[in-house]
Amino acid sequence: MINFESFFKVSYGLYLVSSKYQDTKACYVANTVFQVTAHPPKFGISCNKDNFTAEILRKSGAFAFSVLGEKAPAGLIGNFGYRSSREIDKFKGVNYFIGKTGSPIVTDSCLAWFDCKITDTFDVGSHLLFIGELIASDLIDSNDKSLTYNYYREVMKGFSPKNAPTYIDESKLKEEVKNTGKVNELWQCQLCHYTYESEKGDPISGIEPGTKFEDLPDDWCCPICGADKSMFDRD
Amino acid sequence: MINFESFFKVSYGLYLVSSKYQDTKACYVANTVFQVTAHPPKFGISCNKDNFTAEILRKSGAFAFSVLGEKAPAGLIGNFGYRSSREIDKFKGVNYFIGKTGSPIVTDSCLAWFDCKITDTFDVGSHLLFIGELIASDLIDSNDKSLTYNYYREVMKGFSPKNAPTYIDESKLKEEVKNTGKVNELWQCQLCHYTYESEKGDPISGIEPGTKFEDLPDDWCCPICGADKSMFDRD
Repeated sequence: MINFESFFKVSYGLYLVSSKYQDTKACYVANTVFQVTAHPPKFGISCNKDNFTAEILRKSGAFAFSVLGEKAPAGLIGNFGYRSSREIDKFKGVNYFIGKTGSPIVTDSCLAWFDCKITDTFDVGSHLLFIGELIASDLIDSNDKSLTYNYYREVMKGFSPKNAPTYIDESKLKEEVKNTGKVNELWQCQLCHYTYESEKGDPISGIEPGTKFEDLPDDWCCPICGADKSMFDRD
Repeated sequence: MINFESFFKVSYGLYLVSSKYQDTKACYVANTVFQVTAHPPKFGISCNKDNFTAEILRKSGAFAFSVLGEKAPAGLIGNFGYRSSREIDKFKGVNYFIGKTGSPIVTDSCLAWFDCKITDTFDVGSHLLFIGELIASDLIDSNDKSLTYNYYREVMKGFSPKNAPTYIDESKLKEEVKNTGKVNELWQCQLCHYTYESEKGDPISGIEPGTKFEDLPDDWCCPICGADKSMFDRD
């Protein structure tokens, strides 16, 4: 038996993983970034084969990642996490610079950056595991705390998108809510799958627990991807 | 340029990774445990080739891991993290059970467990990356928080041992202390390399910041591996 609730006990940070091939820049939000060796320092990332960034990573042979801080606005995560670089220029209006490997490195709301040259690519099924040797790294902000996946889920109430290695079918999560036996209105964003729960409100936007969806201000929008109220359907 | 302080912004949990081949059980403390795919759920671990557990993992074709909670005593981490299964039976006096894959699964001070069958082994230099498909998992304790590597470092003041993927040469860390310009006595445990800093004390054992090493009680011992005061040398 697999108990999906156990998955939430595994800790991750949240990162903006980026790459550039010729004039095309790509960037996505990842939680699976991890150091695999110390001498030399090498980092691994797991990227869905269907992600636009996977194509760019294969062609460029390099990636960078920036560590998101707790103060990162949900809109920034929504911009990089729930849209495709195929369709929009995610870097518009965002501060970044080009690293030694040619990768664009985002500095907005990030605490540190790492620039890596890919040494190995391993096929693990739906995803590719890219291993990169660290070429350069630096701190951007040493004071803010790193945004953890747990904080993102518990406080910002975000979910993993479908292509993430840690994606969990929402129907499994909803059972959790049903089992509490409380009346809880659920409204889901059709763009990013964030679920507004009346019982929890939306602390990020200052919405008190117990606020019904119909009582949300007209200008309230999805704290994850910025979609307006019309994008929400009742579950 | 590589700034090693940026490494501390990458988030990890702490895990007991275990395996068994015939009658030999092995277990070590790891921070690099991460999910690499969602369908089916697969997890990766990075294990030093010199670790005794790496041999057992190769032979058994399976591993389990348990997620350490914040309330885990430093001694438990010291037992599994700083000694070799070659020399001692780390499981003596510890609660565990044998999972479906045959791996011993530790339940003491842990919040959840995962039992995995190895599907791939990748060579990344000093370490092997073992990828395992999840066979079973469950929650042990849903109330305690997961122990993060950050909490271990900041509050419990532990370091990575030499074979860890995230090991950092201590001389690089000491610069950090020197740069503050404050008088700070440093005493290092010769067994696990934990450093007692008089400026910070040892909150885990109730030792106030500003307590000199010579003023520590005679029965004080290393909060990480349990070594007594005679095992400490002044830096």
